[in-house]
Amino acid sequence: MSTPQRGRVLLSVTGFNPQRWYDLLSQERDVVLEPDGAEDPSIDYAVVWKQQPGVLAKLPNLKVIFSIGAGVDHIFNDDQVPDVPIVRVVAENLTQYMCEYVNWRVLDHHRQGALYRTQQTKKVWHEPRQPPANEVSVGIMGLGQLGTRAAEALLALGFSVNGWSRTPKEIDGIASYHGEDGLTPFLNATDILVVLLPLTPATDGIVNYGLLSRLRQDGPLGGPCLINAGRGKLQREADILRALEDGVLKEASLDVFESEPLASESPLWEHPRVFVTPHAAATSDPAHLAPPMLRQMDAFERGEPLENLVDRKAGY
Amino acid sequence: MSTPQRGRVLLSVTGFNPQRWYDLLSQERDVVLEPDGAEDPSIDYAVVWKQQPGVLAKLPNLKVIFSIGAGVDHIFNDDQVPDVPIVRVVAENLTQYMCEYVNWRVLDHHRQGALYRTQQTKKVWHEPRQPPANEVSVGIMGLGQLGTRAAEALLALGFSVNGWSRTPKEIDGIASYHGEDGLTPFLNATDILVVLLPLTPATDGIVNYGLLSRLRQDGPLGGPCLINAGRGKLQREADILRALEDGVLKEASLDVFESEPLASESPLWEHPRVFVTPHAAATSDPAHLAPPMLRQMDAFERGEPLENLVDRKAGY
Repeated sequence: MSTPQRGRVLLSVTGFNPQRWYDLLSQERDVVLEPDGAEDPSIDYAVVWKQQPGVLAKLPNLKVIFSIGAGVDHIFNDDQVPDVPIVRVVAENLTQYMCEYVNWRVLDHHRQGALYRTQQTKKVWHEPRQPPANEVSVGIMGLGQLGTRAAEALLALGFSVNGWSRTPKEIDGIASYHGEDGLTPFLNATDILVVLLPLTPATDGIVNYGLLSRLRQDGPLGGPCLINAGRGKLQREADILRALEDGVLKEASLDVFESEPLASESPLWEHPRVFVTPHAAATSDPAHLAPPMLRQMDAFERGEPLENLVDRKAGY
Repeated sequence: MSTPQRGRVLLSVTGFNPQRWYDLLSQERDVVLEPDGAEDPSIDYAVVWKQQPGVLAKLPNLKVIFSIGAGVDHIFNDDQVPDVPIVRVVAENLTQYMCEYVNWRVLDHHRQGALYRTQQTKKVWHEPRQPPANEVSVGIMGLGQLGTRAAEALLALGFSVNGWSRTPKEIDGIASYHGEDGLTPFLNATDILVVLLPLTPATDGIVNYGLLSRLRQDGPLGGPCLINAGRGKLQREADILRALEDGVLKEASLDVFESEPLASESPLWEHPRVFVTPHAAATSDPAHLAPPMLRQMDAFERGEPLENLVDRKAGY
């Protein structure tokens, strides 16, 4: 199906096998998988996940960078990223998975899953007090596509939902806060904190002891809970452990970690009030993510504007 | 607040302490807690949970029976129930709790909670294939108030939802089946079965091996899952265990049991693919359930029709 006029693609991936991406993109485009180290003026598009540093700088005719994944922080580990448009993945499939994960973890903390599992191992038949969802405030940090959809499903389940974002956002049914000034009131009103922020210099390490200690301490669940499905470097794991130990934090569900895979020495693995998943909240399934990239390349070549562009200054 | 003209109430409860019910009903009505065994013509209403057998037959002027709980099967353990209207509890609070429980358990089976918890104990960083919710069919048996609300929230989460009921029901977005003829096609199309049926002679033991073996065996979760939040006597626990052992059933979440509390000898407690809760899916909170009963007594005395009446022939 490929024609000589269609732009060529460099696929640069580290950390997983790019074969399925290669197969899907190759159905419509010429794809280069292993650059030879020299300049390559034949490449128009780069599709990347944690690309090899410097590889993009050797593509003098590069027109667009496509990120595999909703976040783009992995691109900027490379300090030689050419000044061309960067397109984020926005796919129904990713949004759906994230919505499932967030609602699953919120319900498990809300409905006292950890307590019931412990009771079961001891054959204890005991019903603790259970607040209804409308007495519990879920606070979502990050109100982009993922946060908004998760919030809507939480509202359908009956939860009270607060949202916090860098810039003002209005979502029906959600009490929204924004900016530095809004952060403390947002945290003070939150029982279950859901972190879906992008990783930028401004959010690096934002989930630290100071932040956790501002969550509502006298809420109906007997203490606040943390869910991080954003990026591992948003959190300080030593601070999370300290907050769990001294009672500032009741429980945590962590899908992402400062270093991945999570080291076997990490105390998070064995902590009875921490639930660990292997960066699996929202899988980047190439079958769902490659077609929108190919459609955008086609549209770009017809002179149409690119969608889901990254604001390089904001970092996401 | 009570006046001589207002009907008196017998509160007959076994299995839990009726003090809070007594306190709440007494705020507006004269309440008798311990009948003396003789006929009592002074009683107009009975508020019951597993009443002492025969106690209702000694109330010659009984006008209405109010069930504590959405089900009324507990009333008919007594074969001398007078032929007066029976009112079920329908309360927003109960519906809300049940919606939470059903969605919590569906998501935990769907998102492979048991597998991830096992992986965590072994410090295994591995992401299994995860189907998105729209590839998974949740089948709800019983499309009353509870089933309908749970289904709506499941739809908001992206699941495909099937429903089965005794009589035809139409709910937006749900593929509905009914009656004996509809049962097998419903089961064949179901990956996660949610049982919210009333217990009647027709449903006693309906969740048996034959039913479980008709659930979709080649679905995206690697086997079907069972969630029973209805009544324990709907299920045959020996059949559930057999179905788990021979691979017909992948996992189960059971909130109710043939005999409660669940005996410590039951293999369900220790089964790695069974999640046990102590009949806690939807708590009957007297603070939420007593006021609608008192309102119905007032309305009845003004000559208005009773709501949420039980069809004695159908048994619910």
